[in-house]
Amino acid sequence: MSAHHRISEVTITPVAFRDPPLLNNVGVHEPFAIRSIVQVRTDQGLIGLGESYGDRAHLARLRRAGEHLVGTDVWDLHAVERAVLTSLEGDDGSGGGGMSGMVAAGVSNRVFSPFEVACLDVQGHETGLPVSALLGGAVRDRVDYSAYLFYKWAAHPGGDPDRWGEALDPDGLVAQARRMIEEYGFSAIKLKGGVLPPDEEAEGIRALAEAFPDHPLRLDPNAAWSVETSVRIGRSLDGVLEYLEDPTPGIPGMAAVAEQVPMPLATNMCVVEMGHVAPAFRSDAVQVVLSDHHFWGGLRRSALLAGICATFGVGLSMHSNSHLGISLAAMTHLAAATPELTYACDTHWPWKEETEDVVKPGALTFEKGAVAVPTTPGLGVELDADRLGALHEQYLSCGLTERDDTGYMRRIRPDFTVPSW
Amino acid sequence: MSAHHRISEVTITPVAFRDPPLLNNVGVHEPFAIRSIVQVRTDQGLIGLGESYGDRAHLARLRRAGEHLVGTDVWDLHAVERAVLTSLEGDDGSGGGGMSGMVAAGVSNRVFSPFEVACLDVQGHETGLPVSALLGGAVRDRVDYSAYLFYKWAAHPGGDPDRWGEALDPDGLVAQARRMIEEYGFSAIKLKGGVLPPDEEAEGIRALAEAFPDHPLRLDPNAAWSVETSVRIGRSLDGVLEYLEDPTPGIPGMAAVAEQVPMPLATNMCVVEMGHVAPAFRSDAVQVVLSDHHFWGGLRRSALLAGICATFGVGLSMHSNSHLGISLAAMTHLAAATPELTYACDTHWPWKEETEDVVKPGALTFEKGAVAVPTTPGLGVELDADRLGALHEQYLSCGLTERDDTGYMRRIRPDFTVPSW
Repeated sequence: MSAHHRISEVTITPVAFRDPPLLNNVGVHEPFAIRSIVQVRTDQGLIGLGESYGDRAHLARLRRAGEHLVGTDVWDLHAVERAVLTSLEGDDGSGGGGMSGMVAAGVSNRVFSPFEVACLDVQGHETGLPVSALLGGAVRDRVDYSAYLFYKWAAHPGGDPDRWGEALDPDGLVAQARRMIEEYGFSAIKLKGGVLPPDEEAEGIRALAEAFPDHPLRLDPNAAWSVETSVRIGRSLDGVLEYLEDPTPGIPGMAAVAEQVPMPLATNMCVVEMGHVAPAFRSDAVQVVLSDHHFWGGLRRSALLAGICATFGVGLSMHSNSHLGISLAAMTHLAAATPELTYACDTHWPWKEETEDVVKPGALTFEKGAVAVPTTPGLGVELDADRLGALHEQYLSCGLTERDDTGYMRRIRPDFTVPSW
Repeated sequence: MSAHHRISEVTITPVAFRDPPLLNNVGVHEPFAIRSIVQVRTDQGLIGLGESYGDRAHLARLRRAGEHLVGTDVWDLHAVERAVLTSLEGDDGSGGGGMSGMVAAGVSNRVFSPFEVACLDVQGHETGLPVSALLGGAVRDRVDYSAYLFYKWAAHPGGDPDRWGEALDPDGLVAQARRMIEEYGFSAIKLKGGVLPPDEEAEGIRALAEAFPDHPLRLDPNAAWSVETSVRIGRSLDGVLEYLEDPTPGIPGMAAVAEQVPMPLATNMCVVEMGHVAPAFRSDAVQVVLSDHHFWGGLRRSALLAGICATFGVGLSMHSNSHLGISLAAMTHLAAATPELTYACDTHWPWKEETEDVVKPGALTFEKGAVAVPTTPGLGVELDADRLGALHEQYLSCGLTERDDTGYMRRIRPDFTVPSW
């Protein structure tokens, strides 16, 4: 393998892009979402791209890992992972979760992920193959995504109203959905819940069902509900929801709800690493796993998760955080090469300003709710130095170094506590 | 992906190589073992190699699949599998098992496997990478194999004695083990059982334990025992066996034994495709799975199995049938790239005449019981036209078209019935 590309330099660039005031259980999105952009350069001049969370502790880990990766063969992903593990020795694992505390995934998987994606990108450039081919071949040429609805304010406090408007009741949700579906063509709808009292959110879902009778619906209260509430609301939405996502915390709680509600339960909170799979599957706690290569340890690990789910008769969907084009490309290649992925994937994409990204425009576009799988080498996206520079400048000027939905909410509403029902 | 290698021609060549009279539960190995050699040629002149069973019905399926594969991209393994599935439409699935009825694995996996290996071989030649790198990178540079002992006759009826001599009692087994370990350096020992009454086989294991106190020992009666016998013998070998392999048939039977014996139970009989994994793991029927890329559907599917086993805390070892160098290379690359594979793998290799193979000599050699992982492109073995031709001639002249250990035994001992205890 000595003739192959070895990593000669790793660059980690934090970036920030504008984000609307999207509400969730733990608070509200700050005016900027932060991400890290990973560039892996090889001794023969190729560049591979990765994208991950932007939290300070995570950035520090990515930088440390990047130093350990120099000299590693981009094909030897086991060696890449070993280098990441070595770089984490002595790390206490705190901070850098990137999800405001809502998902507690393993540190090493989170750090390994963007490097694995970047190495696959290099492999693609070396061979002329799209990443989907390196994952076994695309089984579809378009990947369906869902309309990801949020309760939201009309504007960030002190800021101008965004183009989406307020959504704090069923009418607001329906209007938001209508606009998003008109623009993107999505054929499935997900509502981020855990914000309003459960019966109000169930009302919102019913209004969406009435307005979009042909769109499968999902509701995700981010584990804000008790088992009792989950069962009550779940039963009341029989025949309305495609699946109910993380109504209540923990594998035993989810198992108790799963026994008593008619629809499948999905999760990206109680099964977030391989160690959770056996206990969750053995107790039939979840019927759908929402994979996310950012915290499962990359695309190949996510493909393994897909195979495990198929083997155990558990469905597979895909989770999303606020992200840019590199992540959308990676998600699209992964979904394309994953036969088991039959649900439309989640994406925050519509919430991002179209003008803000780090990749050159045009490679990824939505049509009828789907993204065409790039057929060019690697991820099929190219870094745009000007756009990257602009979002890095924005990172520096915005002052955010941590995703902290709760802290931001408390600066606005000092008495805010994370609600549960 | 249009610039990449597409399959332009598939050649299936049946071959036969001499095999000693090795005894097992269902009978005895015939004087020749038969295999199929798969050559996948691409439009750009590369050749990929695969090896599989040689049974008539399997050969017919491989040839039919081969025709469907023309035009398929060697990187699009999902498309290769779809072509195999298409070629099997209307097939009643009978015959061609290749294992004398001892393992009932899925037809499509068996047919897909050598083509998947051959495509990975082409991918390796295209990229200059060894197959282990295409599987994520070698985590070890040598793969340990075990000494695979058999009860055996001194010679095939009417034939000359082979160099191994008779082994029908503990002394014969110890002598066989001593010779095999001296020649190959194996550090683990497996005994194929199910041949003599269980207490006699337990005696054989005890004699081996005394003679080789530092060698982990395994016993494989090929499901010839009842649950009661399995428990009694299993308990009597407490502290002597590393694992007990397939003592009794079926997942429920294995689960009943597993509950009552002190050592792990291994299987390559009751878990032989993905559909068996969930019921077996949910009932804790097996603690070690012996993977085999020939019937699990190739190297990537076997890597998936490895990941599933690791996820569920189940051990992983590797099964073997009589095979030639292409299979040894494939097994070695797979084992090298599978971190979870911590047991020495089974191989029938020593039972093959050194002079008989289809690959050029020298690429694969045993040292201290291990094979060095090839670092040259692809599988790292090259077809030898003369040797292939000779073994094909031998296939034609030997007249065998089916592995049939029971039929052969009955020609020698007309009253033979498959024993069980």
